[in-house]
Amino acid sequence: MSDFLDKLRTLVPADRIVTDPDVISSYARDQAAWAPVGTAAALVRAGSTEDVRNVVAVCAEHGVPVVPRGAGTGVCGGANALDGCVLLSLETMTEIVEINEAERLAVVQPGVVNDVLRQACAERGLWYPPDPSSAPWSTIGGNVATNAGGLCCVKYGVTRDYVLAVEAVVGRGEVVRLGRRTAKGVAGYDLCGLMVGSEGTLGVITEVTVRLRGARAPERTIVGYFDTLQDAGEAVAKVTAAGLMPSALELVDRHVLEAVDAWRNMGLSADANVLLLARSDQPGEAGEAEADAMVRLFEEAGATWSARSTDEDEAEALFAARRLSHQALERLGSLLTEDVCVPRGLLPEMLSRVEAAAAENDTRIANVAHAGDGNLHPVIIIPPGDDAARVRAERAFDQIIAGAIALGGTIAGEHGIGLLKRRGLRDELDPAVIAMHHAVKNALDPAGIFNPGKVFG
Amino acid sequence: MSDFLDKLRTLVPADRIVTDPDVISSYARDQAAWAPVGTAAALVRAGSTEDVRNVVAVCAEHGVPVVPRGAGTGVCGGANALDGCVLLSLETMTEIVEINEAERLAVVQPGVVNDVLRQACAERGLWYPPDPSSAPWSTIGGNVATNAGGLCCVKYGVTRDYVLAVEAVVGRGEVVRLGRRTAKGVAGYDLCGLMVGSEGTLGVITEVTVRLRGARAPERTIVGYFDTLQDAGEAVAKVTAAGLMPSALELVDRHVLEAVDAWRNMGLSADANVLLLARSDQPGEAGEAEADAMVRLFEEAGATWSARSTDEDEAEALFAARRLSHQALERLGSLLTEDVCVPRGLLPEMLSRVEAAAAENDTRIANVAHAGDGNLHPVIIIPPGDDAARVRAERAFDQIIAGAIALGGTIAGEHGIGLLKRRGLRDELDPAVIAMHHAVKNALDPAGIFNPGKVFG
Repeated sequence: MSDFLDKLRTLVPADRIVTDPDVISSYARDQAAWAPVGTAAALVRAGSTEDVRNVVAVCAEHGVPVVPRGAGTGVCGGANALDGCVLLSLETMTEIVEINEAERLAVVQPGVVNDVLRQACAERGLWYPPDPSSAPWSTIGGNVATNAGGLCCVKYGVTRDYVLAVEAVVGRGEVVRLGRRTAKGVAGYDLCGLMVGSEGTLGVITEVTVRLRGARAPERTIVGYFDTLQDAGEAVAKVTAAGLMPSALELVDRHVLEAVDAWRNMGLSADANVLLLARSDQPGEAGEAEADAMVRLFEEAGATWSARSTDEDEAEALFAARRLSHQALERLGSLLTEDVCVPRGLLPEMLSRVEAAAAENDTRIANVAHAGDGNLHPVIIIPPGDDAARVRAERAFDQIIAGAIALGGTIAGEHGIGLLKRRGLRDELDPAVIAMHHAVKNALDPAGIFNPGKVFG
Repeated sequence: MSDFLDKLRTLVPADRIVTDPDVISSYARDQAAWAPVGTAAALVRAGSTEDVRNVVAVCAEHGVPVVPRGAGTGVCGGANALDGCVLLSLETMTEIVEINEAERLAVVQPGVVNDVLRQACAERGLWYPPDPSSAPWSTIGGNVATNAGGLCCVKYGVTRDYVLAVEAVVGRGEVVRLGRRTAKGVAGYDLCGLMVGSEGTLGVITEVTVRLRGARAPERTIVGYFDTLQDAGEAVAKVTAAGLMPSALELVDRHVLEAVDAWRNMGLSADANVLLLARSDQPGEAGEAEADAMVRLFEEAGATWSARSTDEDEAEALFAARRLSHQALERLGSLLTEDVCVPRGLLPEMLSRVEAAAAENDTRIANVAHAGDGNLHPVIIIPPGDDAARVRAERAFDQIIAGAIALGGTIAGEHGIGLLKRRGLRDELDPAVIAMHHAVKNALDPAGIFNPGKVFG
């Protein structure tokens, strides 16, 4: 190991290599509860593609695992340290290299924070849609590595849909450009797409070219109050079946409303058991018609109250409550956040299964959902220090995963697999498909150094 | 070889195996001019996934190449026979398995013709956007294998953007499902996306699940006449830079207009040297404003005439002329169709390079372009029997490819690589990226039987 560090020090600036155990340990995990964490040999804060190239080359030579990380906001342990690894932080590679209005694209280093890019684009009249809840902190590199989603996905798709090209360090230290700058292109395999969502297991992303959209029309907000999760789920299914294209369609349940109220005193839980928040960004009359149609469909599904918000500040406050849900819930205990996604029409059924898992295991489960995508985030709350509750929570977690698979859904809508969902992945995918994963992994990571053991073990 | 055929006959219904050389040779090539064509050992018209599975398993056992094909409308030789291969036709697998309004998706067998699917969706108020010019004949399986484009791409993306899942026969005959039915999903690598555009080199697609959209608002058509290709290119660059989102933006030049006139007597070439055809499908006032803005930008770029079409029949006739361009040009000689794509702002420069290549090589080159995407289809016309012209045409072809690469573009916007562009692919991609292709190919095709030698040799 000291050979390895000596070699690294000849190639990477000394101030970028950290071996202080306290600092290393502060970089050793993401936000996943209870995922295993190893002890890293070193932390490297890469300042350039050249730094990454050197780290990868030396690690390949010495068989040392490389665990790339952005802001560490993942929730599945994908960025957790492995024993003896190099934690390779990209957080200081923060340059926005280019924002090109004519081509509607941006080129950024991986450490650029999502909201920073979105703001820089907005200043040019452009829009980078992917908006995970972690947008104020998470980095574009991490968003790409996990194929992050967000509120906009229901209409505008996920990170994958916006990645035109990546520069990455692969193999034993080769720097490659995958993808293109053009609107279309079919020259060879979609290796750029293969890197998106691969959670650092196929290489280290050192630059990203993203597609942008023009700034969009102002949104209208539609609010619905419901007595039950099933009624709210029915409302969502009706909106989809009617062919409407809301620009957001979010669900928040009573547990979340109460937690937000307890923290911020917003008075939300007095009115509703379940809240649906929708938006429409269609311009002009079409948007008016879409918003009115959603109000009507909410009512048909049994909303106790439904209306278009006439006050933009009030609407923004409701979405802020949705965004704050995780932090509000964290005040109640440890959280185990699920991320299942089911066919949209099966949302009511999946919500029932979540409720059943909560009841059966005597566990408190709050529900937040990108409902329009059928993407649920049941959040299992474990009171501090209650080990028995933890065991029950993990059983509920497994039952929710099994339920999603049984409904033709997936165990991972947008958070990835990391360490926490490796067993779920084996349940979801056929052995032949898992074998294809291994074949691709072995082919593109001949030294076996890129985040080994993550995703599919 | 006869061992191989004997084994095949024990597993696949006799009426699906064809060894008549005349029939085989009618299936031995696609629409590519001059791409090499081998002599197949047999043609199998697969009737089911099970047939495909058996063919692949027997071919893997005997080391016999498998060349999958749909309707054979490709233009790069991707479906051309290899010596001793099995031509595996999917054209009789034509079932539309499911059209699901609630989930907005369709499940189809690979032999379903694009227009047939689009029509079936339209009858349910749904829309499958990808619309290659070959849509009346080409199959969804072929569209997926080549990641086909079309007129809609400028606003709605390419085939890849609509493929949620595929069933495929891979490896030595394993049947796998890749992808999902849910709106989102990040469970493992995007192996479904890897199959899209892989031109039959990674397996045989036996079923496709595509995402659908709701039917869209009626389109408005905007027409511009220009004196020069450069003026028309400027108009396109202005439309993009203004952030407009036309639902089509097509360019047709004088050579095409004259050829269509000579065939169909439409009187197009009397008015314009270059025609731009745009559409807007934004609803209501936003669409009116977008159409008016395009007229204005066309004029600012030097249009000799520009207007919104007030007559939908006339507008449809103009788009029909654009769709007929290839057949009209075929009456003039053999065609070598290019497919370069450049950053949109460089369209005028690329059009100049095409003109220069035509002049320098004393070659007639007609231009059709998905202009809004920067995707050009220069069509090199070789008079029948003129071998010297053919040599000059191939030189012009190479110069156009080199020009696109020099401008940061790609050699293949939507037609693929097949046989004709393998050298161009090596020019476009770094050796390290080509090496990644080989690694993936070898990993997923251990028997080396799937369309060997295509794409990257």
